[in-house]
Amino acid sequence: MPSKVRIALDAMGGDVGVPVVVPGAAISLKRHPETEFLLFGDSKMISPELDRHPALKAVSRIVHTDVAVRMDDKPSQALRRGRKTSSMWLAIDAVKRGEADTAVSAGNTGALMAMARFNLRTLPGVDRPAIAAVWPTLRGESVVLDVGASIGGDAHHLATLAIMGSAMARVLFDLDRPTVGLLNIGVEEVKGIEEVREAAELLRKLNPPHLDFIGFVEGDGIGAGAADVIVTEGFTGNIALKAAEGTARQIAEYLRSAMGRTWRSRLGYIFARNAFNALRDKMDPRKGNGGVFLGLNGIVIKSHGGTDAEGFASAVDVGYDMVRYDLLTKINQTLNRDGGPLQLAPRVQEVIS
Amino acid sequence: MPSKVRIALDAMGGDVGVPVVVPGAAISLKRHPETEFLLFGDSKMISPELDRHPALKAVSRIVHTDVAVRMDDKPSQALRRGRKTSSMWLAIDAVKRGEADTAVSAGNTGALMAMARFNLRTLPGVDRPAIAAVWPTLRGESVVLDVGASIGGDAHHLATLAIMGSAMARVLFDLDRPTVGLLNIGVEEVKGIEEVREAAELLRKLNPPHLDFIGFVEGDGIGAGAADVIVTEGFTGNIALKAAEGTARQIAEYLRSAMGRTWRSRLGYIFARNAFNALRDKMDPRKGNGGVFLGLNGIVIKSHGGTDAEGFASAVDVGYDMVRYDLLTKINQTLNRDGGPLQLAPRVQEVIS
Repeated sequence: MPSKVRIALDAMGGDVGVPVVVPGAAISLKRHPETEFLLFGDSKMISPELDRHPALKAVSRIVHTDVAVRMDDKPSQALRRGRKTSSMWLAIDAVKRGEADTAVSAGNTGALMAMARFNLRTLPGVDRPAIAAVWPTLRGESVVLDVGASIGGDAHHLATLAIMGSAMARVLFDLDRPTVGLLNIGVEEVKGIEEVREAAELLRKLNPPHLDFIGFVEGDGIGAGAADVIVTEGFTGNIALKAAEGTARQIAEYLRSAMGRTWRSRLGYIFARNAFNALRDKMDPRKGNGGVFLGLNGIVIKSHGGTDAEGFASAVDVGYDMVRYDLLTKINQTLNRDGGPLQLAPRVQEVIS
Repeated sequence: MPSKVRIALDAMGGDVGVPVVVPGAAISLKRHPETEFLLFGDSKMISPELDRHPALKAVSRIVHTDVAVRMDDKPSQALRRGRKTSSMWLAIDAVKRGEADTAVSAGNTGALMAMARFNLRTLPGVDRPAIAAVWPTLRGESVVLDVGASIGGDAHHLATLAIMGSAMARVLFDLDRPTVGLLNIGVEEVKGIEEVREAAELLRKLNPPHLDFIGFVEGDGIGAGAADVIVTEGFTGNIALKAAEGTARQIAEYLRSAMGRTWRSRLGYIFARNAFNALRDKMDPRKGNGGVFLGLNGIVIKSHGGTDAEGFASAVDVGYDMVRYDLLTKINQTLNRDGGPLQLAPRVQEVIS
């Protein structure tokens, strides 16, 4: 465990860039004073913003570059235009060169994954990286993956996801043997997609020591906390995550409208304000911000592009935790111990073109 | 339009069966007095329950059978054991023989779909039936399909779903040209699964007169009401639906717990009770009950197996609406007009084994 956690930031990433990234880092620094930052981007923009946060400035170094990946760049464009020069690439490269322990970017997901993969390469035994999200549940939190790194995947890919996800859950939730469920459309054996059924057989056969495979979980099992780790391929995982986020926003909207409708409800709102604040806090999508790229020789964290400073701080926090609790070593250990039979997973269609 | 809407009920279907189905029908009858019922199942159980609902009894006829499909029967088992004899089969068969306009069952989805398909057959031009759900959104309601009838599907299958879904939206929402979106993991053209991208091209090329194709919609666009009809294959659709249901339950649980925590919040709850009731009503999963089987020569409605009488009544209501507003004719018209080029969609893996 390093004495300081060194975090590389893509200061230009996201819908807003510097005015969110710098204040976000400042918020996270208050929570974890043993952090140092490398800020990649346009120094003319970063410097004045950093001047407003003296504590952050004291532990930060700016590395200037003129090049920034745009939010609408295709991954191939981003690589062509921004390889070796863009703030996104340089942040990832700092991890590769050992100058930072993790990189955080709110830039576009496809470009970030393409660059991270191109530069850091996948871990031995991992064919395709994944994005893992921390999903709030009725029992606490679960790791859900893949939420959008690659589309489709056979039984071997799903089993690799299970192993990587369980390593992350061990780190994050301090569990010895996290429960793992495969997302499926029915709990009966007869149902579901062939790859998912085969992955279930494979996981039962492997019976990895650091993973308690509990079988299939349906979509509503995620929020119920049916397993510590929920595994699915990236298309379905992304849509499940966003459908849940959309539902949360929808209900928040209903609630706001219901509470403002009559004088009685407005009065009730005033009395119950603390309860509403607690609820809002629990439902705050910014708190869950920070997708973890798993399966690479280095830790990269993806923040939502449209988040604010508080949300970006959450993504930095996630990066901090992953470094502090040594995610990468745990994944490698688990893969070497549990993943031996999985090393020949074939390549399938991918999201990065 | 028939003067009476004749509804066949599988009285034995669901976790509870008769004690939910009969009171549920009674509730729906109050809302639509111009309904008649055929009740299929064990007359020794149905008769006493029907005696408690004289108004329903007056418009109902019991057709006795000893055979009932079990909730855990595999589709193949259900067909073997229950074809031509089970309450589920007989309810569907009443639609086929023209004795009923629609059949409603809370029995197991796989068995119901297998029997409906085996007995009613698919419409000309439709290769595989779908289940459509009515999804509450911030703008009102949307039709989402397929939520679990079959897994996977190529561009032709997705385009057929778009055409059937838009026919249902025309019926349900009284729209001339419903907007249709394809569920995808990104709105940029570069992202997403190949079939979905091809389906987008196909729909743009066809440009059907009764369907306004608006492109890709992400998971959070469903609840936002981004389109009147949201199209995806059955695996993802089912998981999106259940992830959203799970999130709604989760937030309801948070809310309940937050409101009971202090005297202030309990007092606030009392003042705002009407607002909470309105919210509960809006979030009530029973109101959205009733999946519509699309693409068959007849209308079959699937109710949740675990619902109560109120929920079952909603499923009966859905059946009523579909008959009253002539869904089947509209789908056929739309398919004949819009679906000509789609008639050669190849068969793909299916959920029903």
